[in-house]
Amino acid sequence: MDTRIKNTLSKLIPDNLDCLIVSSAANISYLTREISRDSMLLLSKKENIYFTDFRYYEEAKQKFKGKFKVEQISGSMLASIAAACNKPGLKRVGFEEERLTYRQFRLLKHRLNEGVELIPVSSYIDAIREVKDKDELAKIRIATAITEKALSFAARMLKPGMKEIEVAAELESFIRYNGGRTSAFEIIVASGRNTSFAHHLTSQRVLKNNEPVLIDIGTDYMGYKSDLTRVFFLGKIPILARKIYTLVVKAQDAAISRIKPGQPLSAIDKAARKVIIRAGFGKYFGHALGHGIGLEIHEKPSVSAANPEVIKPGMVFTIEPAVYIPHKFGIRLEDTVITTKQGVEVLSGSLNK
Amino acid sequence: MDTRIKNTLSKLIPDNLDCLIVSSAANISYLTREISRDSMLLLSKKENIYFTDFRYYEEAKQKFKGKFKVEQISGSMLASIAAACNKPGLKRVGFEEERLTYRQFRLLKHRLNEGVELIPVSSYIDAIREVKDKDELAKIRIATAITEKALSFAARMLKPGMKEIEVAAELESFIRYNGGRTSAFEIIVASGRNTSFAHHLTSQRVLKNNEPVLIDIGTDYMGYKSDLTRVFFLGKIPILARKIYTLVVKAQDAAISRIKPGQPLSAIDKAARKVIIRAGFGKYFGHALGHGIGLEIHEKPSVSAANPEVIKPGMVFTIEPAVYIPHKFGIRLEDTVITTKQGVEVLSGSLNK
Repeated sequence: MDTRIKNTLSKLIPDNLDCLIVSSAANISYLTREISRDSMLLLSKKENIYFTDFRYYEEAKQKFKGKFKVEQISGSMLASIAAACNKPGLKRVGFEEERLTYRQFRLLKHRLNEGVELIPVSSYIDAIREVKDKDELAKIRIATAITEKALSFAARMLKPGMKEIEVAAELESFIRYNGGRTSAFEIIVASGRNTSFAHHLTSQRVLKNNEPVLIDIGTDYMGYKSDLTRVFFLGKIPILARKIYTLVVKAQDAAISRIKPGQPLSAIDKAARKVIIRAGFGKYFGHALGHGIGLEIHEKPSVSAANPEVIKPGMVFTIEPAVYIPHKFGIRLEDTVITTKQGVEVLSGSLNK
Repeated sequence: MDTRIKNTLSKLIPDNLDCLIVSSAANISYLTREISRDSMLLLSKKENIYFTDFRYYEEAKQKFKGKFKVEQISGSMLASIAAACNKPGLKRVGFEEERLTYRQFRLLKHRLNEGVELIPVSSYIDAIREVKDKDELAKIRIATAITEKALSFAARMLKPGMKEIEVAAELESFIRYNGGRTSAFEIIVASGRNTSFAHHLTSQRVLKNNEPVLIDIGTDYMGYKSDLTRVFFLGKIPILARKIYTLVVKAQDAAISRIKPGQPLSAIDKAARKVIIRAGFGKYFGHALGHGIGLEIHEKPSVSAANPEVIKPGMVFTIEPAVYIPHKFGIRLEDTVITTKQGVEVLSGSLNK
């Protein structure tokens, strides 16, 4: 049996569950090792069933031979899941409470026989996914390498007169010509004052001389994501911008140098934040320092002051300190790191800041 | 007060609700007339509150002056929502059961005072959104026009030797250079045998002579989506493909000619399906005929055999009959229509099939 499934099944034992409904697309992709859409899994000691509709059934049956029983749903997904849960022997049925809507829960519950209990569980598989295996790391490395290349391309391509949206168009295209399937999220290109919004929607604004251009970009490579941010300057760099840029680099370095197994993630956030607070810009850094990344663009672990969890080798997360000066500009620098037994490897290390 | 909000509030009365938590991003965008992210609304007769975090707070306060009270969340969104629901006077609190996870429901419930009741409601706002207003139709028209142009561009651009992913790259770029913010969904480019999968993931496969290329593409224009599918042939068209193509056009025509106010949507699906069944290909058309489209790529109404709902003027939906011959090829043709008082307008009418 695949280790990933074995690890998941072992989580059912302490909670005394007979089976687990997996409804998160990312978790299904993880457990099946295939990019999965419009499917659900039912895992139990006895058998593992993959539910999908007519569009994917034939393909799934071939791919998952000997690994999953594949069932084609007729009617609704939940009806098929409920029918499987109503089979003798299943009494305590776990479901992923973050990945089922209240309505799905209600309809499912309604269809279950008396005596079959629905138990919400949290982060069984998400917690396993925090530590990446070899295969995952290889894909994340490729996704990051493509994004690095795209940012180097951006550095050569950017010029006054281009629209933000045109820069995004060129980068999206670059990713696909260089091995990525798509961008990992809607590429953010923010120029001038727009950089002061942490999550600007790329617009028709024209790039001008002597202002910053912030690019936040990632690649999807075989389902795995990357996520990097750089700020470029067209023409002269204003004095305040230069000062803030240097500060953000310093904050990022402070955080990265603290990363090693056993350290709480909150300490990493604090290390960066302290640098920015001391310089007097603390109130302009309003978000967490980073987030885990893998099959999802935001996954566990969160790198925030509120997360006491400790670092384990094989975690992959972003480090993205920022300073946003309202109505003026913002600087965010984002790299992705892999934690190792010794400490840390910055994946996007070859990309100058 | 904005009609959209007034219409929503009127839904609370028959269910005797004191307020409604709106958690669907599309519904929030609809009610605020701004593309909305990371926010929630609390609507009540007394006041309408827009909750967001530090990133959007300042901007939202300016934009929504006199329309919404804007509250910056400190800590979690659900904590702020719960605090507002715990104010005197609110006893029966509605929430959108399709747009809240079981976990969100559980955490929210946990934070509510005794005596405050959480009531699941279904499709209050989604049902209002079924009928588009002038402003929405104007945006959908533009989104569709850009997509039409992109498909005309595709017809000129496609040639043997290109990869599917490169075609997608060019089209994604085209959309952004022509006024769209982004594609409305991941563009599907399927070639040869890949067309036999209803939802192929665009791949590195190289286009070859004498085979079909299916392109399913949409544009996001100011939050509103379009969705069109065309099949092109490189070189000669195989006899069976030509036959199926003609059949799918006929099925689409049959459906479109039946569209008028008062007709059940199921009849539209049946009209297309009958044509395909009679030709002996019924089992190769496994999905519904179409779906509503607007702020979401799939929204109400569903154009399926199971939907008895009748057509009202101002509905916008796709008509996309298809035949997928396993291991060989598939033909899907998809247009978007607006229903009018007289009947129907095919939005993508100028695009040859």
